[in-house]
Amino acid sequence: MDLVTIEDVRAAAERIKGVAVRTPLLRCLWGDPERPLWIKPENLQPTGAFKIRGAHNAVARLAGQPVIAHSSGNHAQALAYAARAAGVPATIVMPDSAPAVKIERTRALGAEVILVPIAEREERAAELVKERGGAFIPPFDHPDVIAGQGTVGLEIAADLPDVEVVLVPVSGGGLISGVATAIKALVPSAQVIGVEPELAADVAAGLHQGAQVHLPLADRARTIADGLRMEPSELTYAHIAAYVDDVVTVTEDEIRSAIRTIAHEARLVTEPSGAVTIAAYLNRAENLPRGRTVAVVSGGSVDPEAFRQYLS
Amino acid sequence: MDLVTIEDVRAAAERIKGVAVRTPLLRCLWGDPERPLWIKPENLQPTGAFKIRGAHNAVARLAGQPVIAHSSGNHAQALAYAARAAGVPATIVMPDSAPAVKIERTRALGAEVILVPIAEREERAAELVKERGGAFIPPFDHPDVIAGQGTVGLEIAADLPDVEVVLVPVSGGGLISGVATAIKALVPSAQVIGVEPELAADVAAGLHQGAQVHLPLADRARTIADGLRMEPSELTYAHIAAYVDDVVTVTEDEIRSAIRTIAHEARLVTEPSGAVTIAAYLNRAENLPRGRTVAVVSGGSVDPEAFRQYLS
Repeated sequence: MDLVTIEDVRAAAERIKGVAVRTPLLRCLWGDPERPLWIKPENLQPTGAFKIRGAHNAVARLAGQPVIAHSSGNHAQALAYAARAAGVPATIVMPDSAPAVKIERTRALGAEVILVPIAEREERAAELVKERGGAFIPPFDHPDVIAGQGTVGLEIAADLPDVEVVLVPVSGGGLISGVATAIKALVPSAQVIGVEPELAADVAAGLHQGAQVHLPLADRARTIADGLRMEPSELTYAHIAAYVDDVVTVTEDEIRSAIRTIAHEARLVTEPSGAVTIAAYLNRAENLPRGRTVAVVSGGSVDPEAFRQYLS
Repeated sequence: MDLVTIEDVRAAAERIKGVAVRTPLLRCLWGDPERPLWIKPENLQPTGAFKIRGAHNAVARLAGQPVIAHSSGNHAQALAYAARAAGVPATIVMPDSAPAVKIERTRALGAEVILVPIAEREERAAELVKERGGAFIPPFDHPDVIAGQGTVGLEIAADLPDVEVVLVPVSGGGLISGVATAIKALVPSAQVIGVEPELAADVAAGLHQGAQVHLPLADRARTIADGLRMEPSELTYAHIAAYVDDVVTVTEDEIRSAIRTIAHEARLVTEPSGAVTIAAYLNRAENLPRGRTVAVVSGGSVDPEAFRQYLS
């Protein structure tokens, strides 16, 4: 299987300039002195998460074709934003059970939203591709999406060339596949460590057993980290197996507590999925390498009332 | 009176590289389409506010002298951080009534903290300068501090060369003096608008009357925006009179509501003083020019429990 290369990531970085925010590394004054900590704050992207990087890279490679996706969450808004930036129509199939605010925000970005029963999402998206002749953009299972997410790693290596540990949330694996590709090419001595919720720890289990493990979606759906309930595809799992050094897990209480710490100490609003790396940093010292550590805080799309409750 | 120049600001930008974060402009997807909005998130600086820029510029100009200041707030931590980065000792006189967390954080940054009754702060700091031979660094009344804060304006002009409106909080005036110096030099067509709480609106009154107005500290201390209770010095007021187009005011409720909006829509934790520009953007459309608008969100040093209450 062909893996994404550092040249693919570099090309993606050129394409996303001016569309995705070039996020800075934020040096944290707190934490373990043996593991100086920087946050890569991807919650500051215009649609609230890193996903705009991969979505825009994929859209930009299509030379003007309309784009189609199915998503209930961050990918929908990222693709709508990327399509608008590229001047192409976007059609997003969303489950009719999706939160009204997510539907509204996707429409406000200029996308056509088609609501269907959740079980019909994939079929309806496939029909639309046939009817309308556009390109289907999946949330992670695509080399252009992986290369786009990899720009997070490219920027980490540029801003902290002597980074020693990079912590990345793992779900479908698009983000960690891209980041690990970039880091292993540019800072081969650095370790790339994935972080999963204990309640959705299929990749941790897979790495420890030597082959991908599948958990039922009903199990993975138990975590409050609603962005970390997917499992890798063959393509992303191949990148993980090739490049990721380890995957550690965190508990639900550790995730909630990390949201509080990030709010108070780093002045960022994060969603549970975005906070898992800091949860690992704070609670898994014994399972993590020493040294200069970057935690990717992947997103901040959190319901206001839920966020307020995490703070208390 | 000599005003700070754009060359002073450019020189400051070179000095603070690697110490202050080069914050990005964050494009907001919400707001008034006639006034596209970007946030300049200075709450992401290591000590939680823009003040590190001016403090580090002043420390770096001193060629190794120990530094002394009195402060109960953000200036203390900023100066301690800047002194540590420059490898010089810092002594901070703080009121014995200062919150324990602020005292601890200043000490944790390596500064010597001397606690005195609040009325004795200035006298004790002056004595220390004589006893120890260091340099006194005020929080805003100093050309090097103004030039350092001006790097915020330099970065805005670099990242959005066709900016039309820049909104900046006003208190002692160091930040707006520096920002206005840079913006008027680099984008003369842009308007620089200060924002004050209604309850501490001495500069708005002064600009409208044509001469600086002084309000009793007891009046200015009524606002929840505890970083906006100072008044300009002669030096900063001279910059404001020369370069600032207008100052608008916001109510306490508008500030609280803006903290919520910034948390939910921009995924940033802000203190009341940092949120006043967004409060003005949202509630003073009739008093503000149209066009591409940058709101400087100046800081995020907020008590966790107070922040949680602002969200409800």
